[in-house]
Amino acid sequence: MNRLYHYPLSPYSRKVRLALAEKRIEVELVEERYWEQDLDFLRRNPAGQVPVLRLNGKTLADSQAICEYLEETVPAPPLFPRDPDGRYEVRRLCAWFDGKFHAEVTKRLMGERVFKKLRGGGVPDSQAVKAGARDIKYHLGYMTHLLETRRWLGGNDMTLADFAAAAQLSCLDYVSDVPWDKYESVKDWYAKIKSRPAFRSLLADQVPGFRPAAHYADLDF
Amino acid sequence: MNRLYHYPLSPYSRKVRLALAEKRIEVELVEERYWEQDLDFLRRNPAGQVPVLRLNGKTLADSQAICEYLEETVPAPPLFPRDPDGRYEVRRLCAWFDGKFHAEVTKRLMGERVFKKLRGGGVPDSQAVKAGARDIKYHLGYMTHLLETRRWLGGNDMTLADFAAAAQLSCLDYVSDVPWDKYESVKDWYAKIKSRPAFRSLLADQVPGFRPAAHYADLDF
Repeated sequence: MNRLYHYPLSPYSRKVRLALAEKRIEVELVEERYWEQDLDFLRRNPAGQVPVLRLNGKTLADSQAICEYLEETVPAPPLFPRDPDGRYEVRRLCAWFDGKFHAEVTKRLMGERVFKKLRGGGVPDSQAVKAGARDIKYHLGYMTHLLETRRWLGGNDMTLADFAAAAQLSCLDYVSDVPWDKYESVKDWYAKIKSRPAFRSLLADQVPGFRPAAHYADLDF
Repeated sequence: MNRLYHYPLSPYSRKVRLALAEKRIEVELVEERYWEQDLDFLRRNPAGQVPVLRLNGKTLADSQAICEYLEETVPAPPLFPRDPDGRYEVRRLCAWFDGKFHAEVTKRLMGERVFKKLRGGGVPDSQAVKAGARDIKYHLGYMTHLLETRRWLGGNDMTLADFAAAAQLSCLDYVSDVPWDKYESVKDWYAKIKSRPAFRSLLADQVPGFRPAAHYADLDF
């Protein structure tokens, strides 16, 4: 049986869950409290991070490397355009959300208020939370700018760039940290992606000690 | 004329310089003090990071997205294997060095002792420097482990994984932060990659205020 070692509020786990579901690759989800650095888990991925995918006897780590591998081995439906320019843009945006958005927003908001509590690491750093709440506006503004000329973030088709972005935003939305109402086009984009069958398993996630926001699983939020 | 906006001690700039040189794509190097967030530069790359490549009229950002684009548009010589498993491993290792190695080692050592000074940001955080000096040993150990069964880091051919690793290590080597002598097989690997023509331009780099270590440009270090 294929398995995904993941954590429900890990955006990188969510990105891979979305890619797997879109490509209809069934996996058993195994929750991994990766910060506890269990030795069996470190053997699977010496980087000590989720997600880790067991697929046809292989062990794969790093969300972007996994998604590129899935695209090469299970091409349909495609999550990248076919032309190099389009593929470049999708990869640039995956790096944007996985790297910059995560560091400036998700890590500050979720890291301080959720993961610190889960790991027993003390009170949130209010400066970091404030900076995250400020920077999410810049990012939602940038997404608005992209969506002015495109149907999806990476172009006119849905791609892995949309999953990378939705993976981050859906974690933040679980704890109600996204000011949707001020960013109509981003909200419309998120409603579209949220209503895909691939999204269902994310909307059913529950993390003990953190109840999802009332609108979290609502397709008509 | 093609241009690369870069910074000499930016490992991501170096990774792209190595890929460009290996593929014999000539570019004019333009030094960019990216932390000053010049408006013209931000127009080129809203992420505000180097490298940024101007290639045949296009503007490209993010080192991994750039290298994947180069591989797709200028396939020879290849920097990725042809099979999906091999390509996965190269991408996993690029993410390892670009992400984990950088965060745990380069950012702590170079960030505290070089970039803080360049940006006028005060004295180095000695805790961070200590943690970086500790963690580089773990990473050199991991590289040793990989090189026990492979000629190059990603497999038996030289790939982008080697450039990603050499880009980080060559920056650290500029300021003499790599304990080569305790890691013979990593040292041998670095000697091999350092002697490639693609490496020459990196070995000629000079950063005012920071003289390179005596052995930095020495092929027989």
